[in-house]
Amino acid sequence: MKIALAQLNYHIGNFEHNQKHIIHHINLAKEKGADLVVFAELAICGYPPRDFLNYTDFIERCDITAKEIAKHCVGIACILGLPIKNDILEGKDLYNAAYFIEDGNVKVITKKALLPTYDVFDEYRYFEPNDEFKCIMFKGKKIALTICEDLWNINDNPLYVSCPMDELIKEQPDLMINIAASPFNYRHDEDRIQVLSDNAQKYNLPLFYVNQVGAQTEIIFDGGSLVFDEIGEVKAEMKYFEEDLQVFDLDEVQHVKNKYPAAPRAEDIEQIHDALVLGIRDYFKKSGFTKATLGLSGGIDSAIVCALACKALGAENVMAVLMPSKYSSDHSIKDALDLVKNIGCKHEIIEIKEAANAFDSMLAKPFTGLSPNLTEENIQARCRGIILMAMSNKFGYILLNTSNKSECAVGYGTLYGDMCGAIGVIGDVYKTQIFQLARYINKDVEIIPENTIVKPPSAELRPDQKDSDSLPDYGILDEILFHHIELQKGSKAIIAEGYDEALVHRVLKMVTQAEFKRYQTPPILRVSPKAFGMGRRMPIVGKYTP
Amino acid sequence: MKIALAQLNYHIGNFEHNQKHIIHHINLAKEKGADLVVFAELAICGYPPRDFLNYTDFIERCDITAKEIAKHCVGIACILGLPIKNDILEGKDLYNAAYFIEDGNVKVITKKALLPTYDVFDEYRYFEPNDEFKCIMFKGKKIALTICEDLWNINDNPLYVSCPMDELIKEQPDLMINIAASPFNYRHDEDRIQVLSDNAQKYNLPLFYVNQVGAQTEIIFDGGSLVFDEIGEVKAEMKYFEEDLQVFDLDEVQHVKNKYPAAPRAEDIEQIHDALVLGIRDYFKKSGFTKATLGLSGGIDSAIVCALACKALGAENVMAVLMPSKYSSDHSIKDALDLVKNIGCKHEIIEIKEAANAFDSMLAKPFTGLSPNLTEENIQARCRGIILMAMSNKFGYILLNTSNKSECAVGYGTLYGDMCGAIGVIGDVYKTQIFQLARYINKDVEIIPENTIVKPPSAELRPDQKDSDSLPDYGILDEILFHHIELQKGSKAIIAEGYDEALVHRVLKMVTQAEFKRYQTPPILRVSPKAFGMGRRMPIVGKYTP
Repeated sequence: MKIALAQLNYHIGNFEHNQKHIIHHINLAKEKGADLVVFAELAICGYPPRDFLNYTDFIERCDITAKEIAKHCVGIACILGLPIKNDILEGKDLYNAAYFIEDGNVKVITKKALLPTYDVFDEYRYFEPNDEFKCIMFKGKKIALTICEDLWNINDNPLYVSCPMDELIKEQPDLMINIAASPFNYRHDEDRIQVLSDNAQKYNLPLFYVNQVGAQTEIIFDGGSLVFDEIGEVKAEMKYFEEDLQVFDLDEVQHVKNKYPAAPRAEDIEQIHDALVLGIRDYFKKSGFTKATLGLSGGIDSAIVCALACKALGAENVMAVLMPSKYSSDHSIKDALDLVKNIGCKHEIIEIKEAANAFDSMLAKPFTGLSPNLTEENIQARCRGIILMAMSNKFGYILLNTSNKSECAVGYGTLYGDMCGAIGVIGDVYKTQIFQLARYINKDVEIIPENTIVKPPSAELRPDQKDSDSLPDYGILDEILFHHIELQKGSKAIIAEGYDEALVHRVLKMVTQAEFKRYQTPPILRVSPKAFGMGRRMPIVGKYTP
Repeated sequence: MKIALAQLNYHIGNFEHNQKHIIHHINLAKEKGADLVVFAELAICGYPPRDFLNYTDFIERCDITAKEIAKHCVGIACILGLPIKNDILEGKDLYNAAYFIEDGNVKVITKKALLPTYDVFDEYRYFEPNDEFKCIMFKGKKIALTICEDLWNINDNPLYVSCPMDELIKEQPDLMINIAASPFNYRHDEDRIQVLSDNAQKYNLPLFYVNQVGAQTEIIFDGGSLVFDEIGEVKAEMKYFEEDLQVFDLDEVQHVKNKYPAAPRAEDIEQIHDALVLGIRDYFKKSGFTKATLGLSGGIDSAIVCALACKALGAENVMAVLMPSKYSSDHSIKDALDLVKNIGCKHEIIEIKEAANAFDSMLAKPFTGLSPNLTEENIQARCRGIILMAMSNKFGYILLNTSNKSECAVGYGTLYGDMCGAIGVIGDVYKTQIFQLARYINKDVEIIPENTIVKPPSAELRPDQKDSDSLPDYGILDEILFHHIELQKGSKAIIAEGYDEALVHRVLKMVTQAEFKRYQTPPILRVSPKAFGMGRRMPIVGKYTP
């Protein structure tokens, strides 16, 4: 039996596009001699559809689209993920399901049992867990079909009290297929291979796994679909961050060595780079925009975002705005212009002095007798925000936010100032990773100016300001933040790791106090196991610092 | 048996406060002769604790605090809600539970079975559902204790496949107690009484129900704890929007008529008013601030927010900032000043012309040859945002956002301009309800100037602008929005109600297109069954309008 895995980029709620795209790949798989073509979880509507699922019309459109696609499944069978109605009165109104389609008709409906409800996932918000299990008979083979999380209740800390495969294995299936929407983070590829391999071994069955690819606002799917033999060895590994369709012969997967060689996986920093480029590209493509703008300060954060945007959208579609103030150093302008020259994007220079002075004058009366402080620094950052949004409004550029994860974490940024933007490009990348990203971008030729990389980071909002005036060394800061945010450790546990007690308390307090700011920031492209945004939901007026 | 219901205002993660407050009320209940005092769901840590629950230290602090409180339960028993560890490897790591404490010790642990995971609720994100049920023996009576949602799987569209009371009833209990954290919306009081009454009738048992009171950022608890007899009649109804402690004699609840008379419940608009005042007050109290600022335009929205803030915080703690532009009409300033006079708050007048001109001049080069449009309107709104944030930064005022729900819905507002603020006061109140609120506030004496109420709404960002230039009549608009947002109907269903087809499509498209703006707005005080924010999670780059 020949099985095609179709690793596609879906667009949430864009039924017309998804339908056309799926039908095209059914035909392609048929041309390549596949007996069965497998699409991802919720392929019909894209993942995650969130509260679109609460609209009856949305669910009906999913079914109509699937039935339309079914007509094209002649001479080839197909597995297709979609949400379906739960006809039983008790329980949630929907299932996360898959249609097995043969001879133009839906022959079997498989439903998901384990519903991820943690981090960015909210599946139990919508779906009833399945508790009936049955294999699919196709061409004399018994297929144990599961949906994404259904295979993840294995190893250390099982989140669910049951395992769907423990039920399906009773029917003695010949192979497993798993359809997924498994988002990227730079640690996830290793986990995924391990968990799937453990399943193949545990049930002693070959396993075909198909993932989505592409970004849905902040959530990025990396593809990397996989095939394992029954002893858990990777027999094929599909492309990362790109669409892909490959056909595998079940017999050859089981018996031929090195038939489908796996490409070596990229290092973490290259994965992050590729994910961010895809994240920017899909945000624009899927929202119908082509041009981006951003504030270019001469610092490393905005330089990285500019480089990524040029890679994603083409330098001709990127407008860098330089907005010097009286506190900007000479090298800032020079460094920013060097980048513009290296990269070939458009630029404007707009000094902010006039507006900053206007606000000083307008606020002179209420501020009588008070010294300049953070207020005036924020005014400068907010004047820049106004200019960038004006460029966006006037010319249809989408504003890219350039805040990094270390800043977001400790609140080192101005709300409605440098925290503006439609999408946070590097808000899930720590400052120490930003430097690695700069080196990676410069690996063949200098794009990020060397001086931008080596100079001490500064917000340049007062004379001779340095980040290190207000923040700990980024090396230590990022380690503490990683323990706190990614590993979800409280102060006691972090101090037990050997970090300075006062410093840990100070950092964690800053993180807590910045919660109200983060609530109002743009969605942030997620590349880590724990990004700010939907995946991290903290009270705002709580009184607790973990 | 005498049962005290303690309807308290908890502070999320403020263990010290919650402990002291609970112990105080244990002693109070004892003084009043109660045998048992009942506190709400997750009383120890406040509700909703969200991802604080992922921190081990948080769970440990809950247990330590409960054990500390237990020491005070001598001569009185106590029921106390808190999260506890799940010691079984499989399943989520926590339970949403209650301690039954007697003679200073935890005697019984009851766990929640039905975990609300919809709208603002995320309980399955954290908790394992309970499947073991046992009544509590106390003073010769069998108590069927359940936690909030456990009693809600009744009537029309049950969300769960089981009912905890169907299990507990097998032990033939003498009474039911339910501890809750049931947030306010103006339609919820009727539903709550109905559902609880149906339970009392169905199981033929008296029911004691205790709710929280107070606001946790955007979620407002209204209290209104209840007692029913076994035929489902309301025997007592506790205060709304205030703390309360009352002691009930089980025997008298069952056999004495009108022993505990229920206060008449307020009309919806009064409930909304009281909820918003409580929402503002608790936001400030729990985040440690006392003073508020807001932009006062002379229009009805900011007038209402100003009046509510003065009620919540005292007029002396409210700074209204008037920021006229060249497009402000004379009556705007007069109307705003009339309100200031009526209400007695502080005010400043800061014209925005100078800053707006500065931006025009700074942007003259890139904007060469282009006519003024929405860009320049947004610049004015954003200049106001900068001034308000500067007042906030300099003096420690917290900025109140004044956008109403109709505007939020259709995106009639400027991001980083009038959409600034720490908390959205009326973002869940439709414009048509705003007018009702004005009449309610003015019921005894004119606070909101009559002209503010009767003049046609306008953003005053260009000459003679009216809301009605860009938006449908608010009467129709709000009805369509209510169908779409609260009732979650798509265009087909709304058109079927008799609304104009083109208008429905236009309105729903505006709602979809404003999703990216709403993602970055402040938390909004929730008073309706479906507010923008955590309770409504829509894709941003999806391509679908329901």
